[in-house]
Amino acid sequence: MKRIFNFSAGPCTLPQSALEQARDEMVDYHGQGMSLIEMSHRSKTYDQVHHDAMSLVKELLGLPDNYQVLLLGGGATLQFSMVPMNLLHGGKSCDFTLTGAWAKKALADTKKVGKVNVVFDGTESSFTTLPDPASLKASSDAAYLHLTSNETIGGVQWQDWPDVGVPLVADMSSDFLSRRLPVEKFGLIYAGAQKNVGPAGLAVVIIRDDILEACPSDLTNYLGYAGHAKADSMMNTPPVFTIYMMKLVLQRLLDAGGLDAATQLADKRSGLLYDAIESHGSFYRCPVDPSCRSKMNVVFRLPTEDLEKQFIAEALAQDMSGLKGHRSVGGCRASIYNAMPVEGAETLAKFMADFAKQNG
Amino acid sequence: MKRIFNFSAGPCTLPQSALEQARDEMVDYHGQGMSLIEMSHRSKTYDQVHHDAMSLVKELLGLPDNYQVLLLGGGATLQFSMVPMNLLHGGKSCDFTLTGAWAKKALADTKKVGKVNVVFDGTESSFTTLPDPASLKASSDAAYLHLTSNETIGGVQWQDWPDVGVPLVADMSSDFLSRRLPVEKFGLIYAGAQKNVGPAGLAVVIIRDDILEACPSDLTNYLGYAGHAKADSMMNTPPVFTIYMMKLVLQRLLDAGGLDAATQLADKRSGLLYDAIESHGSFYRCPVDPSCRSKMNVVFRLPTEDLEKQFIAEALAQDMSGLKGHRSVGGCRASIYNAMPVEGAETLAKFMADFAKQNG
Repeated sequence: MKRIFNFSAGPCTLPQSALEQARDEMVDYHGQGMSLIEMSHRSKTYDQVHHDAMSLVKELLGLPDNYQVLLLGGGATLQFSMVPMNLLHGGKSCDFTLTGAWAKKALADTKKVGKVNVVFDGTESSFTTLPDPASLKASSDAAYLHLTSNETIGGVQWQDWPDVGVPLVADMSSDFLSRRLPVEKFGLIYAGAQKNVGPAGLAVVIIRDDILEACPSDLTNYLGYAGHAKADSMMNTPPVFTIYMMKLVLQRLLDAGGLDAATQLADKRSGLLYDAIESHGSFYRCPVDPSCRSKMNVVFRLPTEDLEKQFIAEALAQDMSGLKGHRSVGGCRASIYNAMPVEGAETLAKFMADFAKQNG
Repeated sequence: MKRIFNFSAGPCTLPQSALEQARDEMVDYHGQGMSLIEMSHRSKTYDQVHHDAMSLVKELLGLPDNYQVLLLGGGATLQFSMVPMNLLHGGKSCDFTLTGAWAKKALADTKKVGKVNVVFDGTESSFTTLPDPASLKASSDAAYLHLTSNETIGGVQWQDWPDVGVPLVADMSSDFLSRRLPVEKFGLIYAGAQKNVGPAGLAVVIIRDDILEACPSDLTNYLGYAGHAKADSMMNTPPVFTIYMMKLVLQRLLDAGGLDAATQLADKRSGLLYDAIESHGSFYRCPVDPSCRSKMNVVFRLPTEDLEKQFIAEALAQDMSGLKGHRSVGGCRASIYNAMPVEGAETLAKFMADFAKQNG
């Protein structure tokens, strides 16, 4: 069996042992004579998996009791609709930080639902900067401030959290469960699964009770958070396999030391790559301001697009895949989520040094 | 390895060989050094799986070119929102057939979005009957007529399709791809995957071009069919594993003779069980009118609830699971979707005969 270093931005590399467990349990789950994915979602067996997955999120983040965890279909993109539909009813408005391609998508949907004040716009810097959290103030009529904690395409990541007097609402799709959070600052957190949580097919939503209780009751069934919370995220058949994989992945994260260990590893992996960029500063260039460089998605340019193509091809030949930057911005990108072994970052950093020497 | 007959209403039994293939391909997909669920959804490899899954639906149903297949997250329950949001904009109304628990859910959401005329209400017969298709007429202002082709809880299934001059819109979650359809009568068909298509985690939506083109453009991103169609169901990261399993399941359905073969098998399985009920008519009782008994979900009662409990327990001891009726109606239910081997129905029919003799 072959195993290569997969730097894809998501779906992304998962813990090998979780994949092996899924393989071993695929046909006959724990001797029950059927696969877990064939089992009623009302069975005790699946119910345990479902609640284990939610409990792991609570435990890893140390969530206070006044926060609920929801597991919903449709990915973070459906949350771009659901967040404003639930939180901006009755003519409320919100503040928004426009920090990259993902914030832009969230903003477009929010504008269709309610009133939005854009309090930071990174367009002019081509999304290579973030606001100083201390400089942000909530608008007088804002119900919340929305931010995108990590932009996978631009490679910027919030390092500190604003304190603006209204709850923060955050799309954490691409750095969820990679570090500790001051959860009490957040009213709602949402994250597509397909980075640090598991395979694609669901969004994790964390919502504070007072915000949940204020959600409108006249939304259609699937679109209201209240119904999902009441049904323990089993209003309808949940995406069983994704939730099962989430459990396997998060159990390993917890066993390996939880979010403190995850932070140390993220520091190490990203440090290796940013060091490789800076030590060959005449060859590689990271467009992102050093104050907000992402520890999940390291973006960089080479002197020419031809060299970038060559870099990506040679890396692939050495079993490092997924290094092409997003088609909207070009260049190179190494995504190094929780499941990327440090050895992967070491191997890539060494390759970067060699490539710069040979082609610089 | 143990394998039991799983009569669960969904998630449900899947082809054993599809599970075995998923197991074998789980860790290293086709020698690429990673799992398919770790791969970028923009990769050529996943793209092929994605389009194969959609093509199989087209081929199995013989879909004309003016129908699109969409693969969306959130299950059929999200479609209860999306159908009226997309089809009832601008103050349009629709006709609705209230035929059971699932139609009721679809109706509740539709009423929140637009105007609805209920043209059939099965409440009085406890949802044991369906309307005569020939008796139905479209209301003068209806944009479409909604029906639920098979009710998993009540065990009723439409045998013929109304011809009312407006397009039919159908929730086919629980009998999708079990028989041929006069597709041209339908403007939109939707189905949760977790019966005949694969594991839970997506809905298949089939939509006619003229209806697609009339969908509003001011919906939030995920909720509009137009955006999904334009993006080939890759507006965001799709539920990769569910779509992959769908491909494996539908390929087997096609190889086994497609929908004609599926119909023959459904006739055989359901015939065995309804015969077992009728041959012991003083012991078993099917509450559903013979004109609309489901070939997917066979519901039946025993003389007492105690005997029902005993029946379910003894069946389980003989490796037949999932025979408990839905908690809202009680009794027994055998769900016999495409992947249930005929041997499963034979084994259950024989058990039913033996049980009636011993306890009648």
